[in-house]
Amino acid sequence: MDFGLSERAQDYRERVARFVRTEIEPVEADYHRQVRESDDPWRPQPLLAELQRRARAEGLWNLFMPDETHGVGLTHLEYAPLAEEMGRSFLAPHAFNCNAPDTGNMEVLATYGTAAQREQWLEPLLAAEIRSAFCMTEPDVASSDATNMAATAVIDDDDVVVNGVKWWSTGVGHPSCELLIFMGLTDPGADRHARHTMVLVPRSTPGVTVRRALSTMGLYDEPFGHGEVSFDDVRVPLSSVVAGPGRAFEIAQGRLGPGRVHHCMRLVGLAERALELALERGTTRVAFGKPLVNLGGNRERIADARIAIEQLRLLVLKTAWLLDTRGLAGALSEVSQIKVAAPRVAQDVVDMAMQLHGGAGLSQDFPLAAAWASARSLRLADGPDEVHRGVVARLELEPYLNRGTGVSSRDRS
Amino acid sequence: MDFGLSERAQDYRERVARFVRTEIEPVEADYHRQVRESDDPWRPQPLLAELQRRARAEGLWNLFMPDETHGVGLTHLEYAPLAEEMGRSFLAPHAFNCNAPDTGNMEVLATYGTAAQREQWLEPLLAAEIRSAFCMTEPDVASSDATNMAATAVIDDDDVVVNGVKWWSTGVGHPSCELLIFMGLTDPGADRHARHTMVLVPRSTPGVTVRRALSTMGLYDEPFGHGEVSFDDVRVPLSSVVAGPGRAFEIAQGRLGPGRVHHCMRLVGLAERALELALERGTTRVAFGKPLVNLGGNRERIADARIAIEQLRLLVLKTAWLLDTRGLAGALSEVSQIKVAAPRVAQDVVDMAMQLHGGAGLSQDFPLAAAWASARSLRLADGPDEVHRGVVARLELEPYLNRGTGVSSRDRS
Amino acid sequence: MDFGLSERAQDYRERVARFVRTEIEPVEADYHRQVRESDDPWRPQPLLAELQRRARAEGLWNLFMPDETHGVGLTHLEYAPLAEEMGRSFLAPHAFNCNAPDTGNMEVLATYGTAAQREQWLEPLLAAEIRSAFCMTEPDVASSDATNMAATAVIDDDDVVVNGVKWWSTGVGHPSCELLIFMGLTDPGADRHARHTMVLVPRSTPGVTVRRALSTMGLYDEPFGHGEVSFDDVRVPLSSVVAGPGRAFEIAQGRLGPGRVHHCMRLVGLAERALELALERGTTRVAFGKPLVNLGGNRERIADARIAIEQLRLLVLKTAWLLDTRGLAGALSEVSQIKVAAPRVAQDVVDMAMQLHGGAGLSQDFPLAAAWASARSLRLADGPDEVHRGVVARLELEPYLNRGTGVSSRDRS
Amino acid sequence: MDFGLSERAQDYRERVARFVRTEIEPVEADYHRQVRESDDPWRPQPLLAELQRRARAEGLWNLFMPDETHGVGLTHLEYAPLAEEMGRSFLAPHAFNCNAPDTGNMEVLATYGTAAQREQWLEPLLAAEIRSAFCMTEPDVASSDATNMAATAVIDDDDVVVNGVKWWSTGVGHPSCELLIFMGLTDPGADRHARHTMVLVPRSTPGVTVRRALSTMGLYDEPFGHGEVSFDDVRVPLSSVVAGPGRAFEIAQGRLGPGRVHHCMRLVGLAERALELALERGTTRVAFGKPLVNLGGNRERIADARIAIEQLRLLVLKTAWLLDTRGLAGALSEVSQIKVAAPRVAQDVVDMAMQLHGGAGLSQDFPLAAAWASARSLRLADGPDEVHRGVVARLELEPYLNRGTGVSSRDRS
Repeated sequence: MDFGLSERAQDYRERVARFVRTEIEPVEADYHRQVRESDDPWRPQPLLAELQRRARAEGLWNLFMPDETHGVGLTHLEYAPLAEEMGRSFLAPHAFNCNAPDTGNMEVLATYGTAAQREQWLEPLLAAEIRSAFCMTEPDVASSDATNMAATAVIDDDDVVVNGVKWWSTGVGHPSCELLIFMGLTDPGADRHARHTMVLVPRSTPGVTVRRALSTMGLYDEPFGHGEVSFDDVRVPLSSVVAGPGRAFEIAQGRLGPGRVHHCMRLVGLAERALELALERGTTRVAFGKPLVNLGGNRERIADARIAIEQLRLLVLKTAWLLDTRGLAGALSEVSQIKVAAPRVAQDVVDMAMQLHGGAGLSQDFPLAAAWASARSLRLADGPDEVHRGVVARLELEPYLNRGTGVSSRDRS
Repeated sequence: MDFGLSERAQDYRERVARFVRTEIEPVEADYHRQVRESDDPWRPQPLLAELQRRARAEGLWNLFMPDETHGVGLTHLEYAPLAEEMGRSFLAPHAFNCNAPDTGNMEVLATYGTAAQREQWLEPLLAAEIRSAFCMTEPDVASSDATNMAATAVIDDDDVVVNGVKWWSTGVGHPSCELLIFMGLTDPGADRHARHTMVLVPRSTPGVTVRRALSTMGLYDEPFGHGEVSFDDVRVPLSSVVAGPGRAFEIAQGRLGPGRVHHCMRLVGLAERALELALERGTTRVAFGKPLVNLGGNRERIADARIAIEQLRLLVLKTAWLLDTRGLAGALSEVSQIKVAAPRVAQDVVDMAMQLHGGAGLSQDFPLAAAWASARSLRLADGPDEVHRGVVARLELEPYLNRGTGVSSRDRS
Repeated sequence: MDFGLSERAQDYRERVARFVRTEIEPVEADYHRQVRESDDPWRPQPLLAELQRRARAEGLWNLFMPDETHGVGLTHLEYAPLAEEMGRSFLAPHAFNCNAPDTGNMEVLATYGTAAQREQWLEPLLAAEIRSAFCMTEPDVASSDATNMAATAVIDDDDVVVNGVKWWSTGVGHPSCELLIFMGLTDPGADRHARHTMVLVPRSTPGVTVRRALSTMGLYDEPFGHGEVSFDDVRVPLSSVVAGPGRAFEIAQGRLGPGRVHHCMRLVGLAERALELALERGTTRVAFGKPLVNLGGNRERIADARIAIEQLRLLVLKTAWLLDTRGLAGALSEVSQIKVAAPRVAQDVVDMAMQLHGGAGLSQDFPLAAAWASARSLRLADGPDEVHRGVVARLELEPYLNRGTGVSSRDRS
Repeated sequence: MDFGLSERAQDYRERVARFVRTEIEPVEADYHRQVRESDDPWRPQPLLAELQRRARAEGLWNLFMPDETHGVGLTHLEYAPLAEEMGRSFLAPHAFNCNAPDTGNMEVLATYGTAAQREQWLEPLLAAEIRSAFCMTEPDVASSDATNMAATAVIDDDDVVVNGVKWWSTGVGHPSCELLIFMGLTDPGADRHARHTMVLVPRSTPGVTVRRALSTMGLYDEPFGHGEVSFDDVRVPLSSVVAGPGRAFEIAQGRLGPGRVHHCMRLVGLAERALELALERGTTRVAFGKPLVNLGGNRERIADARIAIEQLRLLVLKTAWLLDTRGLAGALSEVSQIKVAAPRVAQDVVDMAMQLHGGAGLSQDFPLAAAWASARSLRLADGPDEVHRGVVARLELEPYLNRGTGVSSRDRS
């Protein structure tokens, strides 16, 4: 057991950390003000493209890709600390081309895509020339149970015909978003996890309509956004299917492990950032003749934040290590564990930081409101807490319930 | 001891409840969509004025005013259940002309205003012809310690000259907002609570600038808003002073007790509404073959919400009763107790309801995000939790620390 | 609505409070030391009998009895504040002859007993000449589901034959414990709540064996204790049945409402006592140059304790009022609500007080360890938290689930 | 970074785990019953000596000693998982001669003892022929501030004269306890951390009186116990001083890092054991027609326990690694972090397990009550939570407060 970073990981971490702190954080507030004051907040600000150009020039580009062809060949464990650094700022994952859902979409294309699919979609995504969305969640059913999905992807000769309404399609508001990865029901009679198909749908295909943008806690995250998208008899060639009909769950499963590690490490970074803001504010504001940190329980809350973050980080890192050494099957419980723990810790640390900032903490003057919304939404996105707790409990119960009591651990009640 | 409502209170409660549920709640979503889709969200929508007209016609108008001249003579205890009903909807307090900060401002004018001040400002406020703001909190100092206030109100012969920057001036964004009640430092050498003066400043006075609107969790609460307002050599006649120079804290204190009871009862109503939404969603959405309420710990969370709300409501009602029977001095601890408890309970119940709603709960499709922001901001507005806990602890400690140990209970550390 | 006590209730409260503080609390530590150092801790100490004599002489006797024949005719709402005072000390309920389970047993006998049963058992219980136990919970089944009960009470001509093992039979260790009220299965084919019978079993009946005393958190509560009792072919005359065969649940139900109000009000008193101890210790011990209350978050914790206690007390009082004005059927949810809330609040306040006492707080030098054990065990006794949360949720859900969705609110999962 | 155990650590872990599960756990209940039913619970039961004999024979002896002379040369990181296994049972640390405070005392003697001191005391301790106690905490002062210590160790020519009252001297009740390591004030004028001296006091020295045994939550932990010990003019030769006068704090500091890692890893094991018991009970007891784990929020609570334990374990392991690689100075914050986190997690998991066990969980039938008491007391022993939070916060604040604001991070308020 060794808790030190490898030299290579340490080197990347320092470079990413430096970039985030010196190139991104200082311009963050300006960027958000520009978006806010723009006559069209959905028009991308040039600042982000400039950051991308610089990050790419420094070799800090597509670092999430585990292979050496598209990325630099970092393991999940090596990438995790970089994701933490990127989590400090809303802009950072975009600057390094490491933002969801493009990351997951690129991984899907790299792993399951045909040569043609990769050329058409993966190359421009890796170059950040286009953006993409992932269309899975639906407004009319409880998506916590993914088998509830009602949208359809029907094979019709050489075509696939796609119908349904999706929402929380992140990134769909961006003018460069050209690819929608759609999941729909193909064979209702097949096995529960072999019914659905993943289809690459160009956004410009007739029948695709972005109905509206959804806000989270009042925020629209322009120019990326979270959209509600309807697909009305959208017809694309059969070559748009990923991997083959009925394989959507298998593919989705594959992207979940790393994706959740990324999300959770970013949340660790978000929590660290919030704690730093709290320390900064708490030591520079004075009330009742003392800096805020010296009043009441504030020091205890700072300690509790530190204690929570340290524990969380280690569990996320261990999960990354499990993915590297045992694959998803060997990390099932841990992936769900961090998915429960990380948003909760981040949310609580951000809330503490908000409180130390007074009204300012809730306003546009600090990144805390957006940070809270981000942490809060991750208690739902990619599976609500309750579902992940259910997975953890099921795996815990397996050795007990499979002892011939006749009670199955799958009985989720 | 008797936990039943008086007949008169019961009658008003039913009338207000009916109005909220049949006139307001059904149009709420439309109203917010109109604001959101308006080319100018700061232009008032006619719908609210129409609701006001109807509420007034039904005699449900200015019910918060404790006297029979301006209101109908309800005690705090009788009004509290009405505030609860109004708390269910963002629109309701406005519809009944019972919204903060106009309520507090009207009370100040009724209690401390001269005949001229009352005629100029109180009458149109009671008629909802104009709106008002309260300018106390400042961006550059920790307002948790109100004596930190840096803005000035200098007496200059027959004038008062007002300078400083205020923020979180709620309502200042409304085009009808014509009156700003300003608090500033007049006599730095006076006793700690006799240094500040309250001044009635017409918004149109030269030197008054609403610099920008502040968001809470991304929401601007248009068309009322929360503004940052600068006062640069703003000169008004001495007759604009309320009650007399140096009396601002005394006046502010008087408005806090009832104001906090109103806030807290509205939060009880907000929590009730959120619980209703949770019950509705939880019984109609299905996942894993069961309605959501029958999954995992959802029923326990619903029970916990109910248990928390019931306890909270009783404490707020008792506080109202203490204000009625013993005055603010006899309710000091309780006023601070509810100010800590109410936003916390409301925030937690809303969070639970959000979780049951999935992503929808965070979006503009349900009033939960706005409800959360409202509850969260009340953990800071009108004194942060920490200050109120300090008051409760100080009163608790008084009999122990004043036993000659030489340790004063005022020592806030 | 009126939060003041009636004059009569106020008078009793003051008398009980004075007795507890001047007669009981000062001798409490001595009493416990005597028990601890006795060569036989199960032999009653004379001190308690002396306290009973004095309380009775002052007319503070059997105050829990709602009728004027056996008690003084206090309503539940009037008695509740007395129960709070009694909750401050382990000894107090015994001193006033208001301790469980004798209280509930006396109520059962008064309400359902025949004249002969009352003469034989009720009279000596009212005079504290004998003690009694209630034998319901069983070691081999989950008693959270009372219909699990496996012990039997079989009618055999003019006799009832009782078999089974019961535990947590509180009070059974006392040498004066002469009466065991036993619940057992009589008619397995009857309706779910009409299967069981309540039987008065003299402890001296052949076949009754107190196997052992159970500890709660290491404490045996001598000389009362909590026993495991086996009944082996215990034969008593049919006249020992209470009310009639099959009526056990009906009778048990009747004693639960008031019993839970008593428990919960005593827990309020226990929490108050713990808070007082915390304040005393926190203002007199010094560390790092300050009294403990002025360190870190201690004042906040004191405030939180006060806020929790105030809310809890009001809910218990309201529940008592509902029992008085609407009966158990009108207080079902509230009775379960307080049963969840009260032990939790008491446990948390006691834990906070312990922490302020350092190691001493866990030791025999303070009543805090026993207080914690008492509060903790009430999260299980009389129905575990989870069952009561289930009741609250079920009642909350009833209007939603009975709308024709086909989902019954009784489905407890 | 690598989360796998070394082969050697893995081998020891498996051997210790096997021993605990097959030799210790099966006899644990019997052992405690024997103690309970013994006419003298302070007389050691032969069973423990037998376990020690077997463990020693298997080479599982003194594993905590970091050197190869006395132990087998395990690093802190290698020993930590063994401590976890030992934490599962009250008996286990004793069986392996790895129990506090003997472990810390042995380390002190090995590091600071003279050859004579080592021969007289260390050898028999390593052989478990004698037991020892550590006498530091005092009843009359807040020991959270160790500089409060009032006992004295006065140098008088060739003697040291020791006076004072100590308590929570763990192990002092054991008949083989022959050595007391005493801390007392020698030079009040010296620097704050150079005033106290550590003295080896044979228990049989005239003037040493074990006044009484202290209980934690009603439990006395016989035959080891926690004693109150008075030292009245206890005179021992100067050669009994450890390391030299005034060095007590330096020595105490050295034993704290490893000691806390041991405590915390044992708490991880305790929590694991409690979770296992919960899973066992929850899958075998049935209520309302389902195994308990399938009712309400029970699965969520099991998941939360797992998530908390995993995070905690990693932080304790990392702390052990820091001690190995950077020494105590490089692990200061982490040592305090785990000291806050571990007892809290263990306490909560045990509480959850208790609740699933119903009344049985609080009784002597399960090790849960003792486990709770153990976890709870560690929120106070070795420094209360509040002090450790203070250390964590201070280290967090250092870079902020030392920026010339004039506010020192040492200002603990």
